[in-house]
Amino acid sequence: MTLQIGELAARLGLRLQGDPRVVVSHIAQLDRAGPQSLSFLGDPSYRAHLATTGAAAVILRESDAAASPVPALISDNPYLAFARAAQLLHPEPEVIGGIHPSAVIDPSARIDPTAWIGPLTVIEARVVVGPGVFIGPGCILGEGVEIGAASRLVARVTLCAGTKVGQRALIHPGAVIGRAGFGFAKDGECWVRIPQIGRAVLGDDVEIGANTTVDRGTIGDTIIGNGVKLDNHIQIGHNVVIGEHTAIAANTGISGSTRIGRNCTLAGAVGMAGHLEIGDNVHFTGMAMVTRSFKEPGVYSSGIPAMPNRDWRRNVARFKQLDELARRIKQLELSLAAMNSTHNPRGS
Amino acid sequence: MTLQIGELAARLGLRLQGDPRVVVSHIAQLDRAGPQSLSFLGDPSYRAHLATTGAAAVILRESDAAASPVPALISDNPYLAFARAAQLLHPEPEVIGGIHPSAVIDPSARIDPTAWIGPLTVIEARVVVGPGVFIGPGCILGEGVEIGAASRLVARVTLCAGTKVGQRALIHPGAVIGRAGFGFAKDGECWVRIPQIGRAVLGDDVEIGANTTVDRGTIGDTIIGNGVKLDNHIQIGHNVVIGEHTAIAANTGISGSTRIGRNCTLAGAVGMAGHLEIGDNVHFTGMAMVTRSFKEPGVYSSGIPAMPNRDWRRNVARFKQLDELARRIKQLELSLAAMNSTHNPRGS
Amino acid sequence: MTLQIGELAARLGLRLQGDPRVVVSHIAQLDRAGPQSLSFLGDPSYRAHLATTGAAAVILRESDAAASPVPALISDNPYLAFARAAQLLHPEPEVIGGIHPSAVIDPSARIDPTAWIGPLTVIEARVVVGPGVFIGPGCILGEGVEIGAASRLVARVTLCAGTKVGQRALIHPGAVIGRAGFGFAKDGECWVRIPQIGRAVLGDDVEIGANTTVDRGTIGDTIIGNGVKLDNHIQIGHNVVIGEHTAIAANTGISGSTRIGRNCTLAGAVGMAGHLEIGDNVHFTGMAMVTRSFKEPGVYSSGIPAMPNRDWRRNVARFKQLDELARRIKQLELSLAAMNSTHNPRGS
Repeated sequence: MTLQIGELAARLGLRLQGDPRVVVSHIAQLDRAGPQSLSFLGDPSYRAHLATTGAAAVILRESDAAASPVPALISDNPYLAFARAAQLLHPEPEVIGGIHPSAVIDPSARIDPTAWIGPLTVIEARVVVGPGVFIGPGCILGEGVEIGAASRLVARVTLCAGTKVGQRALIHPGAVIGRAGFGFAKDGECWVRIPQIGRAVLGDDVEIGANTTVDRGTIGDTIIGNGVKLDNHIQIGHNVVIGEHTAIAANTGISGSTRIGRNCTLAGAVGMAGHLEIGDNVHFTGMAMVTRSFKEPGVYSSGIPAMPNRDWRRNVARFKQLDELARRIKQLELSLAAMNSTHNPRGS
Repeated sequence: MTLQIGELAARLGLRLQGDPRVVVSHIAQLDRAGPQSLSFLGDPSYRAHLATTGAAAVILRESDAAASPVPALISDNPYLAFARAAQLLHPEPEVIGGIHPSAVIDPSARIDPTAWIGPLTVIEARVVVGPGVFIGPGCILGEGVEIGAASRLVARVTLCAGTKVGQRALIHPGAVIGRAGFGFAKDGECWVRIPQIGRAVLGDDVEIGANTTVDRGTIGDTIIGNGVKLDNHIQIGHNVVIGEHTAIAANTGISGSTRIGRNCTLAGAVGMAGHLEIGDNVHFTGMAMVTRSFKEPGVYSSGIPAMPNRDWRRNVARFKQLDELARRIKQLELSLAAMNSTHNPRGS
Repeated sequence: MTLQIGELAARLGLRLQGDPRVVVSHIAQLDRAGPQSLSFLGDPSYRAHLATTGAAAVILRESDAAASPVPALISDNPYLAFARAAQLLHPEPEVIGGIHPSAVIDPSARIDPTAWIGPLTVIEARVVVGPGVFIGPGCILGEGVEIGAASRLVARVTLCAGTKVGQRALIHPGAVIGRAGFGFAKDGECWVRIPQIGRAVLGDDVEIGANTTVDRGTIGDTIIGNGVKLDNHIQIGHNVVIGEHTAIAANTGISGSTRIGRNCTLAGAVGMAGHLEIGDNVHFTGMAMVTRSFKEPGVYSSGIPAMPNRDWRRNVARFKQLDELARRIKQLELSLAAMNSTHNPRGS
């Protein structure tokens, strides 16, 4: 979309420095920007690129405004203002209501006339699709699924029976929401499946990444709070509860019945055991192995960063002796204390 | 389904305490149970909920029976009895034979008339589908696939050419069984693909989770034994063999040609190198890094549990010095021994 | 396919020992080979199987030729020669141009008449499909996707809008290429999505495994170089660049904007932070946790291999004390030095 920066400033509530009639049509990086491109300067380490930028306009802080060779939009948080400007310049395509003739729709489904149902999508009995919803090609909505207004299923999303999605969700291809999770009782050698009768319930403004899975609850629901963002390849086990605005990066797995608070972040490939309680504002770094509850806000970590293989081999061999090494240190301390008391019987 | 508890007791072989005409229609947790709900008391830590439960009936141990305020079904293994009762109360929907008109079926496929083929499913040449099989919407069955009686493909399952599935399988959306795995020979800088001519062969009563992948064998087959249960996002490499009743939790990866015994459990996100031999009754805890064979039954573990980031940074820095620290301990021991022999030449 | 070994030798440029009219039709392992099977001897540890092999012919080194009881094809690199022979014996099925009537094709798409478009595939506006391309059942090609000659999408591949695939690609079921990646700015508690306007661009001879995801670039492209091979369940974040002929095993995740050089290998379940620079010829072992750039060629590793749970518990407890243990070693060294200087004031 093409916008004059005067209008952009008005819509985002930013102060404008320069000609309001300058036109921008797309976003670009400061050092690769061309005509009609809008860029931003947030991180001070990119300041050197400002003087030579080819951008039509730049979003930046007050303190950088004087140095800008091109019109500037002034913001205390240039990155956020840039995100909002980018959404205006690159909006999702408008949803035009309708149903592709190749879609297979159960007559009992209630589909809002302003929603779009894409080609080769399957909609089963009693599904409810809200206004302005976009359902891309190849999706499957099982019996009784409900989707709130303005949600977007990009393509090939599977919502298993009973799944409930709030408003303005964004769900990427390959996601599987609400499958019956991994619950068994043992009978001798055999595993006996426990029926999973709960649902997967997603709040508003939730994002689910490509090939991510959210299992339904065993009894009661798996709950993904408002504003939660999940990246690709994430596993959310049955009866997990994730608090509002928590964001989780790719390849992370959360085992069943764990509860995560609000405003948490989990970096990539975190593994979390089941039945844990994670408080609000808790942050885990990448590949953290979470085996106990963490209720206090803070940053938690684990794992051994990569090192040259030769060093690693030596250190890992010692890790296996670590308890023994610790005992030897204790023994050395005792021996030394004994020697000291022998040589300095009244202390030094 | 609605059942009188007298009938439930009879079908499960449990002793009944209370009125056999009491009706249950669904399962519930002890502390959230309402009318017509069946609950259970297994873990003694939930015993406090028994007195106030709203359940219509409870499955519990003999020793808890006297304390039950509601009718009780007595079992030595309440969790297992509850699983079986839950299967009776919440059965899978009955499969009604037929083929949805939108399915694309090769004329050479042999589909039992009691099997259901869902909408927008593709069935290629020479596929064989057994009696009572349920194939949900959007599945793809490649050339020559065979599926045994009463198996269930929930939706959007891909069975690549030649895959063989036993009876009573349960396969969840997004699973990909039998793709040609990751096998290459190096030619200078380039990788030359080695054709993968084996199959993926699943036994009876196998469960495959959402978005899980099982690669076909290179030469010979990848074999998933009877009763094996795989959770979501699992990778099974070519020519892996998994013994009967082994269960594997989400995000685990098993590299090519590794053989795992029967009755093993792998918790989530375990990584296993290729060409290993894992015995029967071997158990790995979450995120274990398995780089050698483990033939003896037992529990094996690895990984560093998460801790406050500040502590982790300090300890990780020391890990990189671990071999050096161990050498310094040895040196201290030698020095101390030398000092001791100097001061106590004939020993103490 | 059936071939005389004389022809095989000629086509692969190998020296033949024995009757050129011997016929082979498939590959097999040395110890399980039967009539018409071609086997190979690479790893010397399998040499014992040579004498008793049932193979019709064997590929082996000059030094093993005298010991072969059957006709032999002589190669300095038997494994590579075997891979090439296997490709001749087990070719991909020939692609016959056409479009299955159940496919949904936008009229603005340009599809080469020698390409095959499988059943229930969706092809959106302005897609370009090159000659000899095979697109299996259930694929989705978003707006403006381009696919080069002779590429193969096995089944149910999703190429999101704008994705570009080179020639001779092989993409497995469940792969999702070019979805809008995980990019947000924070607004108080809320996450504001940053439109992702770049593309995912795959070079020639690229392989993408089942359920693997490659996110499009935020601004600029995510680039997968020529000859790159990705296994299953891999996550490639936005703006990642992977150099030519790099191979990555299953369950690995690469965070946004990381650049990996050429001829690298990443074993399974490696995790890589964002914005790193990995040089050429860098190799990571399985489950390595990569938190910094590695520019020098070499092998890098991390992680703790599995051990008996009891030992692990003890050692992990000590890991949490590691910094303290190191300080105690330092203190012991100082104490010992002080004692030595007291007892040997002029040194020993």
